[in-house]
Amino acid sequence: MQRYFIELPEINDTLELPAAIYHHAIVVMRMKVGDYFEIVAADKKVTTMQLTKVTSNSATARVDYKFKHAVELPLQVTIACGLSKKDKADWIVQKATELGARRFIFFRGDYSIAKWDKKKQEKKLTRLKKIICAAAEQAHRVEVPTVHYAESIKNLPLKEYSNKIVAYEEAAKQGEKTALASLISKLREEKGSVTDTSLLAVFGPEGGISTAEVQYLKDNGFTLTGLGPRIMRAETAPLYLLAALSYALELA
Amino acid sequence: MQRYFIELPEINDTLELPAAIYHHAIVVMRMKVGDYFEIVAADKKVTTMQLTKVTSNSATARVDYKFKHAVELPLQVTIACGLSKKDKADWIVQKATELGARRFIFFRGDYSIAKWDKKKQEKKLTRLKKIICAAAEQAHRVEVPTVHYAESIKNLPLKEYSNKIVAYEEAAKQGEKTALASLISKLREEKGSVTDTSLLAVFGPEGGISTAEVQYLKDNGFTLTGLGPRIMRAETAPLYLLAALSYALELA
Repeated sequence: MQRYFIELPEINDTLELPAAIYHHAIVVMRMKVGDYFEIVAADKKVTTMQLTKVTSNSATARVDYKFKHAVELPLQVTIACGLSKKDKADWIVQKATELGARRFIFFRGDYSIAKWDKKKQEKKLTRLKKIICAAAEQAHRVEVPTVHYAESIKNLPLKEYSNKIVAYEEAAKQGEKTALASLISKLREEKGSVTDTSLLAVFGPEGGISTAEVQYLKDNGFTLTGLGPRIMRAETAPLYLLAALSYALELA
Repeated sequence: MQRYFIELPEINDTLELPAAIYHHAIVVMRMKVGDYFEIVAADKKVTTMQLTKVTSNSATARVDYKFKHAVELPLQVTIACGLSKKDKADWIVQKATELGARRFIFFRGDYSIAKWDKKKQEKKLTRLKKIICAAAEQAHRVEVPTVHYAESIKNLPLKEYSNKIVAYEEAAKQGEKTALASLISKLREEKGSVTDTSLLAVFGPEGGISTAEVQYLKDNGFTLTGLGPRIMRAETAPLYLLAALSYALELA
């Protein structure tokens, strides 16, 4: 069922569709009176709505069913990525939103070739926010992840996180196998109370992460973490991490 | 280090670079005498080579070091996907190769909008093979996954597989949480002897998998499997599966 996020604090009996939702539901999706869709309001509750009236420029729907279903990863994961070339940021946020990330930070790494100047930052973040919102709707999530820019690795908000890891290609090459399993086993023990647990995971750009950056992260409590024996592209590694966390915390 | 696959049965003392490798290493990557690269021959052994002679149309390298490092997922995973639109097949094979898949089959699903006629099949498969080979080199793998086309779900080579699952969106919606964990716990018990174990995992196209297809798969020993509580796009689900398998079989 089509899902929309809405800024209202909660959904009561009826809803006049805001313009953007009217456009998508009525004009693009051609929904008619009697059709259903879902709304997620600011209270994170999912409500099934049924269209009761459609005119050429407005539409009204009424509450059909309210439910709450655990669809959020039971761990607040922030994916911090070095700036990569082309549209890689686009699809990192799309896929990682489907996989349950809560927040994205793109930072200029020592080996980043791409640059986001002031003007580009704004344009890029606007574009990424749109992609994230569409992916969150499609993935039937109740949280819309946020996205930020950081001038360097030193601008990451380290103090907000109880767990911090950096994916390190050299760790994969050297066969590092224990860090991710240790982290996950700690998280599993905390499960139940794990909802407020947060993880900041740093990934380098295509060129990797510099020795100085690794040292800075180590000095600030990050664990160097291997993600299996194969070398992954910069944009694939965050997906591996999120899928492994989902499997271990939601299914295993 | 740059890695190349080569069709020779094994690497002996010296190697004259084949034309395609000469082009990439010398012309594109501008390697010079003294530079190193890796070769994977048909025996799956990885050999570090050092360039000893470079001319305007040929180059020779000598064996520097032979080693064998476990980089292959200890389970032969085949990803069978319904045909999807645009370039989705391109990036499914790229990412899933990085994540350790051994074989790909693209089939025409009941809800596939895309069609691959005879001419397109050939062109598509040639393109996919190139992408797979480049991804396998980049991921430092010793196996190059294969790729095939099947006219329908009924043409999948079921008998070759000891484990068969189908990712089913409805399972995610209904909160199915046990099938993947059961499969993985079985595979972990078999570990050690697990190298020859094979898994066929079927994923629908964007439109999903039809009731008739689900019934056919169930009748043929497939387990309907949820991949966590969020709804993933057709191209994201195979990556989730491979990352979960890698985590559980290689790291946990």
